[in-house]
Amino acid sequence: MDYKEMLKKAKENLQGSCRVCPVCNGKACAGEVPGMGGTGTGSAFTANYEALENVKLNMRVIHDAKDPDMSVTLFGKDMRIPVFAAPVSGTTLNMGGKFSEREYISWVIRGCLDGGIYPMVGDTAVDAFLPTNLEELKAAGGEGIAIIKPWENKNVINKVKMAEEAGVFAVGMDIDAAGLITLALHGKPVGPKTVDEIKEIVESTKLPFILKGVMTVDDAYLAIETGASAIVVSNHGGRVLDQTAGVAKVLPEIAEKVKGKITILADGGVRTGIDVLKMLALGADGVLIGRPFVTASFGGGAEGVKTYIDKIANELKVAMILTGCKDIKSISKKILYI
Amino acid sequence: MDYKEMLKKAKENLQGSCRVCPVCNGKACAGEVPGMGGTGTGSAFTANYEALENVKLNMRVIHDAKDPDMSVTLFGKDMRIPVFAAPVSGTTLNMGGKFSEREYISWVIRGCLDGGIYPMVGDTAVDAFLPTNLEELKAAGGEGIAIIKPWENKNVINKVKMAEEAGVFAVGMDIDAAGLITLALHGKPVGPKTVDEIKEIVESTKLPFILKGVMTVDDAYLAIETGASAIVVSNHGGRVLDQTAGVAKVLPEIAEKVKGKITILADGGVRTGIDVLKMLALGADGVLIGRPFVTASFGGGAEGVKTYIDKIANELKVAMILTGCKDIKSISKKILYI
Amino acid sequence: MDYKEMLKKAKENLQGSCRVCPVCNGKACAGEVPGMGGTGTGSAFTANYEALENVKLNMRVIHDAKDPDMSVTLFGKDMRIPVFAAPVSGTTLNMGGKFSEREYISWVIRGCLDGGIYPMVGDTAVDAFLPTNLEELKAAGGEGIAIIKPWENKNVINKVKMAEEAGVFAVGMDIDAAGLITLALHGKPVGPKTVDEIKEIVESTKLPFILKGVMTVDDAYLAIETGASAIVVSNHGGRVLDQTAGVAKVLPEIAEKVKGKITILADGGVRTGIDVLKMLALGADGVLIGRPFVTASFGGGAEGVKTYIDKIANELKVAMILTGCKDIKSISKKILYI
Amino acid sequence: MDYKEMLKKAKENLQGSCRVCPVCNGKACAGEVPGMGGTGTGSAFTANYEALENVKLNMRVIHDAKDPDMSVTLFGKDMRIPVFAAPVSGTTLNMGGKFSEREYISWVIRGCLDGGIYPMVGDTAVDAFLPTNLEELKAAGGEGIAIIKPWENKNVINKVKMAEEAGVFAVGMDIDAAGLITLALHGKPVGPKTVDEIKEIVESTKLPFILKGVMTVDDAYLAIETGASAIVVSNHGGRVLDQTAGVAKVLPEIAEKVKGKITILADGGVRTGIDVLKMLALGADGVLIGRPFVTASFGGGAEGVKTYIDKIANELKVAMILTGCKDIKSISKKILYI
Repeated sequence: MDYKEMLKKAKENLQGSCRVCPVCNGKACAGEVPGMGGTGTGSAFTANYEALENVKLNMRVIHDAKDPDMSVTLFGKDMRIPVFAAPVSGTTLNMGGKFSEREYISWVIRGCLDGGIYPMVGDTAVDAFLPTNLEELKAAGGEGIAIIKPWENKNVINKVKMAEEAGVFAVGMDIDAAGLITLALHGKPVGPKTVDEIKEIVESTKLPFILKGVMTVDDAYLAIETGASAIVVSNHGGRVLDQTAGVAKVLPEIAEKVKGKITILADGGVRTGIDVLKMLALGADGVLIGRPFVTASFGGGAEGVKTYIDKIANELKVAMILTGCKDIKSISKKILYI
Repeated sequence: MDYKEMLKKAKENLQGSCRVCPVCNGKACAGEVPGMGGTGTGSAFTANYEALENVKLNMRVIHDAKDPDMSVTLFGKDMRIPVFAAPVSGTTLNMGGKFSEREYISWVIRGCLDGGIYPMVGDTAVDAFLPTNLEELKAAGGEGIAIIKPWENKNVINKVKMAEEAGVFAVGMDIDAAGLITLALHGKPVGPKTVDEIKEIVESTKLPFILKGVMTVDDAYLAIETGASAIVVSNHGGRVLDQTAGVAKVLPEIAEKVKGKITILADGGVRTGIDVLKMLALGADGVLIGRPFVTASFGGGAEGVKTYIDKIANELKVAMILTGCKDIKSISKKILYI
Repeated sequence: MDYKEMLKKAKENLQGSCRVCPVCNGKACAGEVPGMGGTGTGSAFTANYEALENVKLNMRVIHDAKDPDMSVTLFGKDMRIPVFAAPVSGTTLNMGGKFSEREYISWVIRGCLDGGIYPMVGDTAVDAFLPTNLEELKAAGGEGIAIIKPWENKNVINKVKMAEEAGVFAVGMDIDAAGLITLALHGKPVGPKTVDEIKEIVESTKLPFILKGVMTVDDAYLAIETGASAIVVSNHGGRVLDQTAGVAKVLPEIAEKVKGKITILADGGVRTGIDVLKMLALGADGVLIGRPFVTASFGGGAEGVKTYIDKIANELKVAMILTGCKDIKSISKKILYI
Repeated sequence: MDYKEMLKKAKENLQGSCRVCPVCNGKACAGEVPGMGGTGTGSAFTANYEALENVKLNMRVIHDAKDPDMSVTLFGKDMRIPVFAAPVSGTTLNMGGKFSEREYISWVIRGCLDGGIYPMVGDTAVDAFLPTNLEELKAAGGEGIAIIKPWENKNVINKVKMAEEAGVFAVGMDIDAAGLITLALHGKPVGPKTVDEIKEIVESTKLPFILKGVMTVDDAYLAIETGASAIVVSNHGGRVLDQTAGVAKVLPEIAEKVKGKITILADGGVRTGIDVLKMLALGADGVLIGRPFVTASFGGGAEGVKTYIDKIANELKVAMILTGCKDIKSISKKILYI
């Protein structure tokens, strides 16, 4: 599948909900929530992109990293490259509505598995979406991860059970959705949680638990206390709190403090294999990619998703060669130009 | 009242005097004085916006600030959120002239009180405007503050008396208007004042006295000497001296030196509840908002004003949740990303 | 004369050689030499503007500087404000050619004297221009300064004599024109000069001698060695060496080292009274303004020039009030926001 | 030949493959590979331009450098100015295809020799191009340098022999092309090399050997170990690894460590004689210029190339006069504004 052709199709199928800009940086869609944009001025989305853009690479060519090994094992699963599709749901509200939630998520799941990586599926205000996502994941052998909103604990725990039944290999909570105060009006409040509350959820399952939405060292330490297996450094794509710093800006300090004590995933502004390399060099063990998977699936279904994964894998390989990294664990801050 | 609809109406009613831009940053209206712009190159207005924009937030989600208390008591009055409508007068000159001074200020006063906050009313070169403002304030029970221009002392003291008679709970002087040298040509000179001159005014009333236009630590110390109850860190919306620094830039140093010794209000570039949170985190006890109240009142009258207040209260609440602030006094520099 | 009307006329009369942009920052005319632009990428012109733009003011309002004294005495002459019209010549080549060299310079001279300041007149590759300029200056009582190009010494000394005969009160050399290597092809080489060469020129006259084109501390020290009375910190309006730093950037270090040992004038990017204040606060004893005088004279003749001087005098007064400077010698770095 | 006329012609003849922008900074052509752009977001190309743009000059005019000597001897050859045409090949793919590889390179070679400098000729995926380049170079007396891609060692060594037979006075390898992983699919893999592998190539010839693509101090030290005579600090014009730092940014640190131990050439974003001066002041012994030679040759053949060389020589001379550099070895960091 031709990549540019896919983008052209995506633009049609997204029906204006996303302009499929040459550079996906949150400027054209600033404030479009619902939609694909960042909240308010859009600056938290833009900050993710710019924080990565400000990180520059040291090119190195005198070495023997001629054919880098890009594979990793995360949550007990072997992956072609350390990339997950981020949990994105709510096609009707956010993506123009041409395709159903089921169509969308089935493409992402299939494309990811075909591409050698794993999908995360999401939860949202519409009750039906998580079950749909989980049904599709189950149909694909449960080869993915479910991320649940920070509802009241008993609801979260119920949904964790649902995910377990679908056969997922890890579960998590996008606690960065804690500010959706309008959900309380519909009787389904979400909110921040204390260490003890999170601990109760973590202990309710034997699966690895992922806490998504950690943006400070303090929260990273608290996440370790909860018993979670992993954190996702994420500002929810800039969709929940305007004016937060970019993920690539806060990641290094977090990694410096907790690397090795908890798995660190980074989510925000990753578009290319170069960006993946940067996030790893800044301290992440793996990355999440969100919006580009929407574009890929809307533009080419499962094949579009796989095409996009192939593209970033190729870019990552070239970038590892040209920075002299023979495998993922060789990637370090030394490849960054400070 | 729909917020976007209100903006659309505002644009019509402001008749070009304000473009109601998606982002109100002083660029489109640079130099439009009279009008809504900053003076000269417009940079002092723009600097206010950009100084705030450069402040970034630390998102925090592991805590128990699930329903933050946003209320404060300032000048002995309980307020829903720590926000005042800034004194803005002169509709005829600056806002296209579709509505009268009386209509405009009555909407601001009523909307503020309906929204749980208090208005400041202003004084200007046109003699009639302060009395009009005070009449409307008196009709609303005097529930507001009068800010007087830095005329010769006896004139200021007379106007303070007029304000007392209207029942206001505080008075002040926008000494940042000291540079309007053309007023001297009309026999009504304004100017800077010495500590002794200000002290005479402060001592002429029993009401709390607010000195608006402090932009340096030196002036903040002098303000304390005058016996004033509060300062407003303000460059008069960038309308009096081009090329001044932004308020959010000078605020932290001022707050570091005089916080707790005098009430600190901040005025410049605040548009959203996020901005309110930033100013408080930078050291303010409360904030003033100017131009957006013009837009809101011109777009929806008192209801427009209340709609705008509800919007920023909602934004402030979400921002407090996502930065882990359970009440106003918990807000500190720790929530800022440096 | 209405200032905006004058700009409109100027635009017509400059016939495209200058766009009379809202902000005169060297962007629209980048590379237009001949013309009004900076050389090459135009960055040396733009740097002048941006260096000043980056300097921000501390507003101060609690003080007694109610009616600042803006006058100075420079080269033994009393001036309303510390501003000179910079030497600009070559209307035919650079300014579209609608007006003659004589018309242009007579307006600048008359307007300056009417406005309470003094003009500098210039020299150029066309032999006839300096005599024309000096004739007009003589007709105005010699109340100005002549600035001569760095020809071979005997030519410079001859031209100094011509200037003396016109009755000027000071002479100088714009040694920053040293790079016009094409002049050598026409048998009239210009070039840099050693201390001894400059000393010979300085000693050939009893008039105060001004060395224009000093951009480093080293050259400032050498200028003192030559016996010159004054330096002009100037990159020739960005017209001779692309990629030089802006004048307001290099001025503070130069002033720190030689202030009081030699008169320091600053020339580059000054547009308003605010800019004048900034240059003085950065260490200048006076400033030169170039392009805006072209605009003013082309737009309104001598009256246009005076209108422009009145405008900057008014701006300077307001800025001195709002930064608390009671006279020129009170202006210091303390009024700058660092 | 008129320079502007030449650019106009170039624009026609490049048939959209290059827009011949007023400023050649990689923005308009971002991502156009094949084509003239930088890879991916184009940022590595743009970074080259901006890194140079951020370096500012100290203008100096009190000195005796009235007629600077710009000549140097590099690789035993006397040069009018320390500038090489960078190896650029593949007209068909990258430059619109109007002219053949042979036409293009013959113009560059002839123009360089007429202009008093030497060309580098290149190698590419199309086998025929290197022989064509070498034939043309041989026809011009071998007065140039051949730069070979990092194929497997035996292929590189064969091509070095071919270059020797053409009579070149130096050879080299653009090891920065190591990331062209698609070439492996065609059975002609390129890749990074170890010190030992490079040493084998260096030792296979008696000609001076140039290693092109060094962007770090580490690689510069390794290059010395290989026995190479020179390094080219280069990110391959931003065409191989997106998001690398600009050449002018990494050059000073490299020069600080290895200057005098190995010849240092710099390649990236040089457009003018001013840029040449900057690179030399940052520590280079000479510079390479790429894209502008394409424009010049497509716009005016050999004469266009010479016209461009004359232009930069003239600019370099003026810049040396105005920074007080009497010869190339006098150029140092002292002329830079930090």
